[in-house]
Amino acid sequence: MDAKVSSALNTLSASEIAAEIAAGRMTCEAVVRDCVARIAARDGVVKAFVNFDADIALDQARALDRGSRRGPLHGVPIGLKDTIDTVDMPTEMGSPIYRGNRPRADASCVALLRRAGAVILGKTATCEFAGSAPPETTNPHNPAHTPGGSSSGSAAAVADFMVPAALGTQTGGSVLRPSSFCGVFGYKPTYNTINKQGVWPAADSIDTIGWLARSIDDIELLTAVLRMETPRPPRKLENAPRIGVWRTDLWDTAQDETKVAIVDAATKLGKAGATVRDVDRPDAFTGLHVIARSTIGFYERAACMAYAWDHQRQQLSPQMRGYIENGHKISRDDYVAGLRRLDECRALLGGVFANFDVLLVPCVPGEAPKGLGATGDPSMQAIWTALHTPTMTLPTHRGPSDLPVGIQLVAQRYDDDRLFACARWIWDRIGAPDMVGVRRSR
Amino acid sequence: MDAKVSSALNTLSASEIAAEIAAGRMTCEAVVRDCVARIAARDGVVKAFVNFDADIALDQARALDRGSRRGPLHGVPIGLKDTIDTVDMPTEMGSPIYRGNRPRADASCVALLRRAGAVILGKTATCEFAGSAPPETTNPHNPAHTPGGSSSGSAAAVADFMVPAALGTQTGGSVLRPSSFCGVFGYKPTYNTINKQGVWPAADSIDTIGWLARSIDDIELLTAVLRMETPRPPRKLENAPRIGVWRTDLWDTAQDETKVAIVDAATKLGKAGATVRDVDRPDAFTGLHVIARSTIGFYERAACMAYAWDHQRQQLSPQMRGYIENGHKISRDDYVAGLRRLDECRALLGGVFANFDVLLVPCVPGEAPKGLGATGDPSMQAIWTALHTPTMTLPTHRGPSDLPVGIQLVAQRYDDDRLFACARWIWDRIGAPDMVGVRRSR
Repeated sequence: MDAKVSSALNTLSASEIAAEIAAGRMTCEAVVRDCVARIAARDGVVKAFVNFDADIALDQARALDRGSRRGPLHGVPIGLKDTIDTVDMPTEMGSPIYRGNRPRADASCVALLRRAGAVILGKTATCEFAGSAPPETTNPHNPAHTPGGSSSGSAAAVADFMVPAALGTQTGGSVLRPSSFCGVFGYKPTYNTINKQGVWPAADSIDTIGWLARSIDDIELLTAVLRMETPRPPRKLENAPRIGVWRTDLWDTAQDETKVAIVDAATKLGKAGATVRDVDRPDAFTGLHVIARSTIGFYERAACMAYAWDHQRQQLSPQMRGYIENGHKISRDDYVAGLRRLDECRALLGGVFANFDVLLVPCVPGEAPKGLGATGDPSMQAIWTALHTPTMTLPTHRGPSDLPVGIQLVAQRYDDDRLFACARWIWDRIGAPDMVGVRRSR
Repeated sequence: MDAKVSSALNTLSASEIAAEIAAGRMTCEAVVRDCVARIAARDGVVKAFVNFDADIALDQARALDRGSRRGPLHGVPIGLKDTIDTVDMPTEMGSPIYRGNRPRADASCVALLRRAGAVILGKTATCEFAGSAPPETTNPHNPAHTPGGSSSGSAAAVADFMVPAALGTQTGGSVLRPSSFCGVFGYKPTYNTINKQGVWPAADSIDTIGWLARSIDDIELLTAVLRMETPRPPRKLENAPRIGVWRTDLWDTAQDETKVAIVDAATKLGKAGATVRDVDRPDAFTGLHVIARSTIGFYERAACMAYAWDHQRQQLSPQMRGYIENGHKISRDDYVAGLRRLDECRALLGGVFANFDVLLVPCVPGEAPKGLGATGDPSMQAIWTALHTPTMTLPTHRGPSDLPVGIQLVAQRYDDDRLFACARWIWDRIGAPDMVGVRRSR
């Protein structure tokens, strides 16, 4: 393998890497060396990784090259948000409280990835405890802008071609927002269908593991592994999809680039043969982002951080202390009313999805804001996280600063496979390869 | 305080202990000393505790006695199932894999108990990873019989007056079954309303923390603390309850003592003024215990034990290996169909509870089986755990071996307060103090 080809292995997708290694045309070590080189070249600026040891990564790669084929991710490097336990690397939660923390075991999702042959390339930067106090990570498209969060490092690493895919977690919008801001595909499965053992909780009644990649193929490949399934051929629709455009009550808060993205996508998809109609939003959905983020999010945060609050408060960020203080002010009655309201809305979605295969909704207010002190507004993603629906963002558009702006697709609970098929149909019609990740000439 | 009174402090309820200490009539140290003495006298036979250190318990008690009042559990000793993280005691999951495991923090529920002033008396024996391989614990009523599981030690310790209350967890029937077998009150809240951070998962989509005590007052007292609420006066009904008797499709598997308990309770409660009617069971509920235990339980167990399966398999019990092997045989489609079926049944419960305040259902097949090799059948409890409803068992009856047989009460999701009020109404009419725990003369 000559140096020229080798130097591009980090730009391959997970599916391509898996296929090439399976065919004996590439070694895992060569792939990891190129990812390591990319990280060496770029992570001084991007700061996607917080725990990265080239030797640990290369040792895993060489062991896989020596051994027999493990599974469908054999030799594929994966990044992991640093709220996910790993037995061979520290897991620090983006907090000084967990500095040097060494879990006794891999999280369930990590064990399943390794069982399938993945190389855990390293741990990616996270907001403190998957909250909102940002890590140092920058947006790989422009280091003056946030990459989004809380799965900041996972999105930046995938967008910057350091790793083909990474895991994150989403409680508000911690997978889809950084995916949108960094220009990659981000997927949050139906709640409680992917095991969370060994992952730090933020608000357990809505927390969901998600993953980020540069292709829908790769999203589906990781999905199969984490579902403990054999990968299947890509899901395809038999007929053009029925797409419901749901502007939500946050439409007026969206910047022009997001409005343009949704309207442009809807127009083009209609012309391409999809049935595209506006959704009549039931009143019960108004203000759902507040219930999701404040009522549920703060209350459960206050509960799950009880030990840190009582014993390690000075090591918490002002943002986290604020969350917990807000949580202490939410009454139990309001919390339970919030849970009931979400249940009510989930039931109403049955009627909505009787008429639509997928919803097209705004993902983010606009492109990634300037500055690294905050990771952007999760409200538009938080609605769907709280409703437990599967969602995906596709990197279809750009904003005025030439930064990515994704659209968001939503399917009915448990209908993740239909979401994949619709996403593929849509991407085939309005997507473009050069919208994914940073410009390769970089 | 003379020795005679002092020797009985372990028989007080949590509410009584809290009130006496708050009034300055008792020290926490005196209470803990009596609990320690009871454990010394009895735990050689009962084997309720797996990590118990009298010095750690007494140190906590003396610190509480020296300090200002912390909260509504000030000075109250509590036992914790050993799947719940504690920073000052090992947390061993009933498995050699976690021998000597020292968590970095208390679980959320433990932090909240300590914040309220509780003394963590010790860690109680659990089935391996809250599954089915039993610990050495015996039934305090008769050591030849199982105490039930997986919260075996919590039930035995409360029933034997070693501690007034304890936490457990329930995925199938791990709180209510041992409560029924040991003759105490056991309560499982509505799913996902009590934070699970720091508690080992079994099947996360149904796992729920529950608690066990010798009075409904104590169940409510712990509830307030774990909800981060100020305790309220006991919930009372304004009118006699509408009670639905739901025999379930497992009725024919029940032994006579369980059938007698349900029929006798229904008859007496009807005579006492309650509206008591049989529930017409929708077809969708048939076989729900199989979905709960096998489809959901085994599949999720296989996922959450992925690391142990790949790296520590020889340290797993044959029972656990069997669970995981069964889980690997369940297809993703069957798993998702199971989740959808549970959602469907939860929606149907809305109609059921339009007509009833509470359901009266069988809790266990009968009294605790003889032998310590298994902890009994969780099917009758598992239905309600999987439906996410709050449930409680009351120690109302006895079987042919003079062992306890509880009834099970079920309320609609989020209606835990109504469950308490109904339970209190029912207990006031058919309960008897000497049915709670072991005979005190023991």
